[in-house]
Amino acid sequence: MKHLRLSLIGFGVVGQGLAELLVSKQDLIKQRFGLEVSLVSVANARHGYIYKEAGLDIPTLLELAASQRPLTDHPGVKRWQHTLDGLRATDADVVAEATATNLRDAEPGMSHIRTALTQGMHVITANKGPIALAAKELLALAQQHGVQLRMEATVMAGTPVLSLLREGMAGARVRSLRGILNGTTNYILSAMASGREYAEVLAEAQAQGYAEADPTTDVEGYDVVAKTLILAALAWGHTLKPEQVLRQGITTISKKQVHDAMHEGKRIKLIASLGVVSDVGEAPLEARVEPLVLPLSDPLACVDGVLNAITFQTDTLSQVTIIGPGAGRLETGQGLLSDLLAIAATLK
Amino acid sequence: MKHLRLSLIGFGVVGQGLAELLVSKQDLIKQRFGLEVSLVSVANARHGYIYKEAGLDIPTLLELAASQRPLTDHPGVKRWQHTLDGLRATDADVVAEATATNLRDAEPGMSHIRTALTQGMHVITANKGPIALAAKELLALAQQHGVQLRMEATVMAGTPVLSLLREGMAGARVRSLRGILNGTTNYILSAMASGREYAEVLAEAQAQGYAEADPTTDVEGYDVVAKTLILAALAWGHTLKPEQVLRQGITTISKKQVHDAMHEGKRIKLIASLGVVSDVGEAPLEARVEPLVLPLSDPLACVDGVLNAITFQTDTLSQVTIIGPGAGRLETGQGLLSDLLAIAATLK
Repeated sequence: MKHLRLSLIGFGVVGQGLAELLVSKQDLIKQRFGLEVSLVSVANARHGYIYKEAGLDIPTLLELAASQRPLTDHPGVKRWQHTLDGLRATDADVVAEATATNLRDAEPGMSHIRTALTQGMHVITANKGPIALAAKELLALAQQHGVQLRMEATVMAGTPVLSLLREGMAGARVRSLRGILNGTTNYILSAMASGREYAEVLAEAQAQGYAEADPTTDVEGYDVVAKTLILAALAWGHTLKPEQVLRQGITTISKKQVHDAMHEGKRIKLIASLGVVSDVGEAPLEARVEPLVLPLSDPLACVDGVLNAITFQTDTLSQVTIIGPGAGRLETGQGLLSDLLAIAATLK
Repeated sequence: MKHLRLSLIGFGVVGQGLAELLVSKQDLIKQRFGLEVSLVSVANARHGYIYKEAGLDIPTLLELAASQRPLTDHPGVKRWQHTLDGLRATDADVVAEATATNLRDAEPGMSHIRTALTQGMHVITANKGPIALAAKELLALAQQHGVQLRMEATVMAGTPVLSLLREGMAGARVRSLRGILNGTTNYILSAMASGREYAEVLAEAQAQGYAEADPTTDVEGYDVVAKTLILAALAWGHTLKPEQVLRQGITTISKKQVHDAMHEGKRIKLIASLGVVSDVGEAPLEARVEPLVLPLSDPLACVDGVLNAITFQTDTLSQVTIIGPGAGRLETGQGLLSDLLAIAATLK
């Protein structure tokens, strides 16, 4: 039986999702993967970083979080006010970074990931900011320190898009890709396809928790831009800046436009696309995020509601499409879990 | 730079597909994976097993095959009449088994794989027979000898279905799956959807090389049964016998049935399905291969022509669908290549 010590930074929806899976899947992980995981540290912004050499009790942590009590109420823990201090003072095999995404400077996730890698700890993350802004730099840092950095949960939650790209299709050269990468906007456009107005559907999505109070990040396409940057880095090893992505949101799409498209047997979707413009030199990529009118013969046209999808065009596999959930607590936790198991498979 | 010595058993369409990729992707494999592959042995049924310590010249082998000359014309090789003798007398890091599928007793592939694993060589295979009939036994044999057995190319060619199942969704529990797993029958049913008769489309598919002269294996569903057995073994660790799969082919589907389905906005597809019947004990699986009438809202309904697809239902990811090529020389070679790179990643 292998034993893996995990540190979990960020104990919001995503961090708690992973923690829940570590409990509910404890037996499966032992039986199928010969692995025992002990959670040795947890941090959140409000209560700081707690550590227990012998392992924290996950049900206790989930209960504390559910009842809004400080994580420091967990018995027998050492505590640091600042996560970086705790990370530097303690040790783990793998750090799971699950703090909130910040697309401006990627903090505090960026510092957490850099610190963990530099100390020789593997990192798995669901945080789009650091990967969107600095995937190449962080992957190089990981390599330099002989550890792995995995980020399945940053694109389409636990739907295994990035493992498909990096491992499943290893050796294939991606020519281009197109995707529906945001659940909120796809939910809105799908609902508009049944004849409703944008504002009405948005209000409903906000009431149901599918859209945030300030929906700008989703509806203006910024979230999809971040995922597009991640895909550019992982499929082509190419660092794009956000402003290099042509971006148009869905806020100006009218009920009439959606209706007219339906009438022609088509669908309007918010599509991210990436493609090689030229094979000369360090191949420049064209990156776009925009609403497009798709015929029903397009595999992306029928992807509705909160489902997301990506179609890859490669040299050996003409066209490969993967469709799956794009968000959710356990769905995102699953992405972190598969990354954790991939790293565990390489440990002695 | 890592160096990997490969033995290739079977030099027909699939084996040559892998060989071609090893040449055309030599630079990519070096740059992205830090790997040099040398092909040290090749075997086919007609000319036996040839070996060259310093590595064979792949373009020479492809030329010999193209001009129907014996592989033994390659300069400077040692030769064995029987592949098993050659395998036992020589060494490689990885054996690629790419002989023709035999669903009765899985030979000669079964003996090739057993021999290679027993000698401590990793095995990658595109041969459905041994995996369909004995996946569990062969995986146990691999584990016993501390080596890996990978078989991406046995289901949907290089479309990364099995890596998605084993690694991409690691930790998720598959509840059920449904798939379109045979290109020939999907091509025929897609063509019938435009108003043509079964016999006419079959004849055309045979003329174009999509269907074999004796199409029984495809049109009666035996090929899909084999893939269903493979998925049962890899998703549930469950060994099913071919006769435990309810099987119905497409030979009795009439133009009228296809037309009537179209008229109701539906499509007829040959669907493989696997699902857990009961959670008690070693969960018995229900396995079926049969033509089904699907509504257009089903993600499999729109998968046409030679494309194949699988939808997995799991506990953490409600529904994940992957669509891609199901056959082809380079497509199948790609499946062997991704397996080779996965094994290389674990070598020191």
